[in-house]
Amino acid sequence: MTKAAKSVDLNADLGEGYGPWRMGDDDAMLGIVTSANVACGFHAGDPDIMARTFARAREKGVAVGAHVAFPDLIGFGRRPLPLTAIEIERAVAYQIGAAQGLAALAGHRVAYVKAHGALANLAEKDVEVADALARATRAVDASLTLLAIARSEQVRAGERAELKVAHEIFADRAYVDDGRLQPRGQPGAVLVDADAALARVRAMLAEGALVTISGKRLPTPIDSICVHGDSAHAVEMARRLRAGLEAEGFALRAFVEA
Amino acid sequence: MTKAAKSVDLNADLGEGYGPWRMGDDDAMLGIVTSANVACGFHAGDPDIMARTFARAREKGVAVGAHVAFPDLIGFGRRPLPLTAIEIERAVAYQIGAAQGLAALAGHRVAYVKAHGALANLAEKDVEVADALARATRAVDASLTLLAIARSEQVRAGERAELKVAHEIFADRAYVDDGRLQPRGQPGAVLVDADAALARVRAMLAEGALVTISGKRLPTPIDSICVHGDSAHAVEMARRLRAGLEAEGFALRAFVEA
Amino acid sequence: MTKAAKSVDLNADLGEGYGPWRMGDDDAMLGIVTSANVACGFHAGDPDIMARTFARAREKGVAVGAHVAFPDLIGFGRRPLPLTAIEIERAVAYQIGAAQGLAALAGHRVAYVKAHGALANLAEKDVEVADALARATRAVDASLTLLAIARSEQVRAGERAELKVAHEIFADRAYVDDGRLQPRGQPGAVLVDADAALARVRAMLAEGALVTISGKRLPTPIDSICVHGDSAHAVEMARRLRAGLEAEGFALRAFVEA
Amino acid sequence: MTKAAKSVDLNADLGEGYGPWRMGDDDAMLGIVTSANVACGFHAGDPDIMARTFARAREKGVAVGAHVAFPDLIGFGRRPLPLTAIEIERAVAYQIGAAQGLAALAGHRVAYVKAHGALANLAEKDVEVADALARATRAVDASLTLLAIARSEQVRAGERAELKVAHEIFADRAYVDDGRLQPRGQPGAVLVDADAALARVRAMLAEGALVTISGKRLPTPIDSICVHGDSAHAVEMARRLRAGLEAEGFALRAFVEA
Repeated sequence: MTKAAKSVDLNADLGEGYGPWRMGDDDAMLGIVTSANVACGFHAGDPDIMARTFARAREKGVAVGAHVAFPDLIGFGRRPLPLTAIEIERAVAYQIGAAQGLAALAGHRVAYVKAHGALANLAEKDVEVADALARATRAVDASLTLLAIARSEQVRAGERAELKVAHEIFADRAYVDDGRLQPRGQPGAVLVDADAALARVRAMLAEGALVTISGKRLPTPIDSICVHGDSAHAVEMARRLRAGLEAEGFALRAFVEA
Repeated sequence: MTKAAKSVDLNADLGEGYGPWRMGDDDAMLGIVTSANVACGFHAGDPDIMARTFARAREKGVAVGAHVAFPDLIGFGRRPLPLTAIEIERAVAYQIGAAQGLAALAGHRVAYVKAHGALANLAEKDVEVADALARATRAVDASLTLLAIARSEQVRAGERAELKVAHEIFADRAYVDDGRLQPRGQPGAVLVDADAALARVRAMLAEGALVTISGKRLPTPIDSICVHGDSAHAVEMARRLRAGLEAEGFALRAFVEA
Repeated sequence: MTKAAKSVDLNADLGEGYGPWRMGDDDAMLGIVTSANVACGFHAGDPDIMARTFARAREKGVAVGAHVAFPDLIGFGRRPLPLTAIEIERAVAYQIGAAQGLAALAGHRVAYVKAHGALANLAEKDVEVADALARATRAVDASLTLLAIARSEQVRAGERAELKVAHEIFADRAYVDDGRLQPRGQPGAVLVDADAALARVRAMLAEGALVTISGKRLPTPIDSICVHGDSAHAVEMARRLRAGLEAEGFALRAFVEA
Repeated sequence: MTKAAKSVDLNADLGEGYGPWRMGDDDAMLGIVTSANVACGFHAGDPDIMARTFARAREKGVAVGAHVAFPDLIGFGRRPLPLTAIEIERAVAYQIGAAQGLAALAGHRVAYVKAHGALANLAEKDVEVADALARATRAVDASLTLLAIARSEQVRAGERAELKVAHEIFADRAYVDDGRLQPRGQPGAVLVDADAALARVRAMLAEGALVTISGKRLPTPIDSICVHGDSAHAVEMARRLRAGLEAEGFALRAFVEA
């Protein structure tokens, strides 16, 4: 994906309520990010929440993606369910289509696909799962971009499927030397200090590489930075990250047209 | 919808299993009908069943529609749920999109939308519900046809939304004088004799009108005949109806391209 | 239900999260109320949330009831679903049993049953629904108390089923002259001022009667006062109500043994 | 579990429909078996199906058990879901309670607990899962019997929890030499010939041992024989097995009082 120099995208998970329940501060985040990963009803989200989220994203000029997941509301898509690759492919196609339907109703347009939770984790390393994700995306709409975890099997699967691929890094997660995220349980896995997160993101953007906990550089294109909005603290970190990047001269811009 | 003289479509509900459960004999019906109304996961169906149903329909040259319903698996979409018109619109858009996603994966294409069960019944008489159905269809894809119950609010809503409308009659249900179906509980409401059903369908096609239980004629275009496949008896009636219509010189053909 | 003079119960809805989602501040409320209405998985709650809620209630000496509802997670049990009385009876029996199972696992004991949301509203006026609720309760465990809305069909149904009945008033809702709650949409239907709510509750307890918006007195036993905990404001009102009643000399005590 | 000489129980899975869907011929099976494993709504079954199944079992004098499973309707409880032991314990307690509630409503009484599908398979070998199953059963009702797969961890967990344990063999499945079932995919894993199944069951009952595919004898008490009813063929095999055992002088009798 060719990008103008010094522009970058911020993406976050939105529309993660269900029925009467809410999660995170979507309105705040829509004022910060340039791309919104919208839950499709499998790990969170329902037709009403999706329609409202797409409508608000459109109003704010935020690009939207289908945030596809295992069918696991009670586990919030965080549990690796024993689906076959073909079942995953079908579950993904269903969710992308549903998101497109509601985005159309809201006058918006799904521009990309991103995997959520356990599905994203599996698709990082498992070629079959990554291919299922990419194939489903390609089959439903060849113009969709795959928002892929940098240097993961998702990237390669997207390329095999001849999809546009956007490469994503995480603002608040530590990388180990093979380029994967340090598991959440371990000390230092999650950066809680906004300045530290900003410094590291700046380094990664400047060097065009993942910076691992041992200081190793792993080259990668970087099109998007994933931030969180599930707590007041997370929203504040996202806000400061954006401000810091703008101060640095970066244009905050979706990797696709909103 | 302009039709060549003496051609007509047979439609039936398919893909109405869920997880381990099956309903009806889909394979038999795919050899009889020209259009398949495919459940979208709200009253029945799941991504695997949908994908398989779309794939088999494609192989057999059967056109497919999104059979949209209230979100009510346990009630099979037959219970009138208290959704607002806007909630219905969103639920419909979600389902159409999901069906399109899986049809694309299966190499097929959703050609039309039909309401199922309690949603269909409401949309027969309730202008707001009918409009919600038509608006959602139009918003998701303006090229979709609305398969509407003849002389119902569904027809008028489809026309208001500037959709193509296909007019549907029922092979095995009696009509009362206002053009509505006689409620199932009442004697004579359901025709169980294939010859009687065929004779009545022939009369309706010949006269371009609904024929009511009192013998009244209510003029309507007729593009499609709804048959059932939920029992061996129903499959047999569908088969005989098709044979009878072909003997009569009718070409059995989808009202849209498969 | 015979009560010692000047003791009263405070009840609130708890355990109303689902999977990753939470609602209200259960820990705060468990320090205020004497009875907790625990969601049973039909409108909210899941086995893990139920187990934790029962365990915490036991630790705090708070009595627990099965808060039974329509099977309607997405609608939070607030929509009147078209279930027959026999279907309601079965849904209620299922939920009471499930709550008993998890309470036993947590070392606690379900002491009462209360209807939630749309089911409660229906059972206020509809004799068949009220009887279904009471019959299911009686059948599952004849020692259970029915926590019934004062002067509603729930009271009479509980008496017909020969259940112990506890009579409930609402701290923050206005009553119209037939003894029913003023619908939420209307001005004045919900009291937001804690002092006003306390004054009215005191009047009702002192007079042994509902006090309606026109000042009418409708005699009723009062065993329990329903408070809310779904916002910081609601928790604060509950706390002040409790303090006010204690200052008045009331012992706050469950209407059943915890 | 002390048994009169030459009496044995036949158990089968019943109530495995959901909403509009049915599975197997419950009425036929209730005329054959002496114990019915009733689905509790997690892998199949809903309050209406449960209530009707309990009522019919009572009429026919058939004992009933709670057939507990992973929460996995779409996968019919056959997929090993990643629940922790504590989550399994809670899911099991919920289901047993729910079954007790509906059995009480139907005038029957849950006499035992049996694990279904992937939960049963896990609890065969995994001590933690087996203990979770037994602990939940014990906590909900210490008078319940655990219907356990012969020579599995389920037996030992039941004994550790000081539950009555009934030992179960399978009529139509081959055993490998460690006493476990041969996996379904392999040739010979499922016996389809009723005479062969009867001969093998007779041998196992006569010798008080599992008979493996290599002819090895693995001693075990045998209280119950599991038969299937999910096809006309399966019903017929169950019927012939019963007839064969009666001809042999066995009294067919539940291992608990119905």
